Amino acid sequence: MPARLARVRDVADLRRFVARWRRRGERVAFVPTMGALHAGHVSLMQQARRSARRVVVSIFVNPLQFGPHEDFSRYPRPAARDRRLLEDAGVDLLWQPTVSTIYPPGDRTRVQVEGLSDVLEGASRPGHYTGVATVVMRLLAAVQPDVLWLGQKDAQQALILERMCTDLLLPVQVRRGATVREPDGLALSSRNAYLTPRQRQQAVALSQGLAAGRALLVRGERSAARIVRAVRAEIACYPLMREDYVALVDARTLAPVRAVQGRILLAVAARIGRARLIDNLEWSPR
Amino acid sequence: MPARLARVRDVADLRRFVARWRRRGERVAFVPTMGALHAGHVSLMQQARRSARRVVVSIFVNPLQFGPHEDFSRYPRPAARDRRLLEDAGVDLLWQPTVSTIYPPGDRTRVQVEGLSDVLEGASRPGHYTGVATVVMRLLAAVQPDVLWLGQKDAQQALILERMCTDLLLPVQVRRGATVREPDGLALSSRNAYLTPRQRQQAVALSQGLAAGRALLVRGERSAARIVRAVRAEIACYPLMREDYVALVDARTLAPVRAVQGRILLAVAARIGRARLIDNLEWSPR
Repeated sequence: MPARLARVRDVADLRRFVARWRRRGERVAFVPTMGALHAGHVSLMQQARRSARRVVVSIFVNPLQFGPHEDFSRYPRPAARDRRLLEDAGVDLLWQPTVSTIYPPGDRTRVQVEGLSDVLEGASRPGHYTGVATVVMRLLAAVQPDVLWLGQKDAQQALILERMCTDLLLPVQVRRGATVREPDGLALSSRNAYLTPRQRQQAVALSQGLAAGRALLVRGERSAARIVRAVRAEIACYPLMREDYVALVDARTLAPVRAVQGRILLAVAARIGRARLIDNLEWSPR
Repeated sequence: MPARLARVRDVADLRRFVARWRRRGERVAFVPTMGALHAGHVSLMQQARRSARRVVVSIFVNPLQFGPHEDFSRYPRPAARDRRLLEDAGVDLLWQPTVSTIYPPGDRTRVQVEGLSDVLEGASRPGHYTGVATVVMRLLAAVQPDVLWLGQKDAQQALILERMCTDLLLPVQVRRGATVREPDGLALSSRNAYLTPRQRQQAVALSQGLAAGRALLVRGERSAARIVRAVRAEIACYPLMREDYVALVDARTLAPVRAVQGRILLAVAARIGRARLIDNLEWSPR
């Protein structure tokens, strides 16, 4: 029988739980989420569970990481369903802070990971990663976990937060969980809920595009331009998809790459209907 | 007999000390410094000592908070004298990190306290307070103290760091120690060491200017313009001093004030010879 899921709202209550575990010498893993949980989150929680005795999950739809015309207000918030999922996943503690807990009155502090935050997703969504770094710093300060689990689905986010933890000397280990996909390849995302059935069919364009890129890489193609062209050609087969970017970059610096040598990130973003979807592939030559 | 001063360089060694104290339930106070310690620092350490069982002091001349034409390279570094002072003050642990410990290779992360960082000292020293917030965030993450002690001498710095700790939900209490002064009123500062004897005599201009401002406030003057004018007139009596700014602002927002109502900060900065000196007065009507 899974242990009962405890739920807290205040930082003081959260800290009481974590302090009790720490006194017993129990390791604590943390999975920050915006709710609307899916099997990708569950996979992260299961990995978190194997990495530590205790798992804390936060649900916080962070206003600071949404642009003025983005989907903050309509972002899905299926609270009861989320709770059942957390219970089934054996999560110990759910923390659902209010906006004024995370952004106290008079708040003025921002965390910025320069250079990595203004390219790819950051170029399309100005201020997005400052919002992400700023909120995750706060979540980490409140939870103080031993391990932080992040999804590979937003590889740029994972890289930025790894960089932040290293740079700010935060005493936390950062781990990435692999992207979980639908049987046809579509990466799981809370935003898939926005898709109509027809859009859902075509949303496979992103993973299909990446598959085309991977096929070239595996066959020895090293020209970034040719790989990007092949991804674009594949995505173009799906007329409902409006490409935002297809980029082949260094996986550690996000700098554009001309010829594939070290570890690369092939990242794609596109709009379809009301949704904006992303996906990516990390790869390195043998 | 004072306990022996332990010294560490690496974060791992630092954390071992602090973890041992924490296991015994001992509170830890932290005083970050750039060395060149004086009686103002010692006063902070003594207050830190009364606030917690253990006192950690860092000495780190932080390159990030110095402008390209400022005094980073010639900032005084009297290592042996500093150590004796720390021993006499009963400090438990001295942490002297290297630059690459605080700024790991590839570092890109900055902490910014918006709105408070670009006025007064921040206007004269662009980037200074981003450097301060960024380094203190790292020092706090490494030490994880219960109490952080800051000097009132740089009131803007104290305000910015209080704001940062609140906003980032850092589990630390921030306390300010009063400015310590020479018998003639000059605020103690490591940069006083730059003064020639004649400059030293005239450096009293700042505290004399503030005293003139205080006299007006106490007598009921509420016009910021008239108070600032009186401070300026006093400083002008010392021909070697080149005023940088005299400002009367809200002590919590640093916004300019026209008529004194709530708590105010009267802040002055001036150059004299190779030195740039600051001083301030916080005051509120009964």
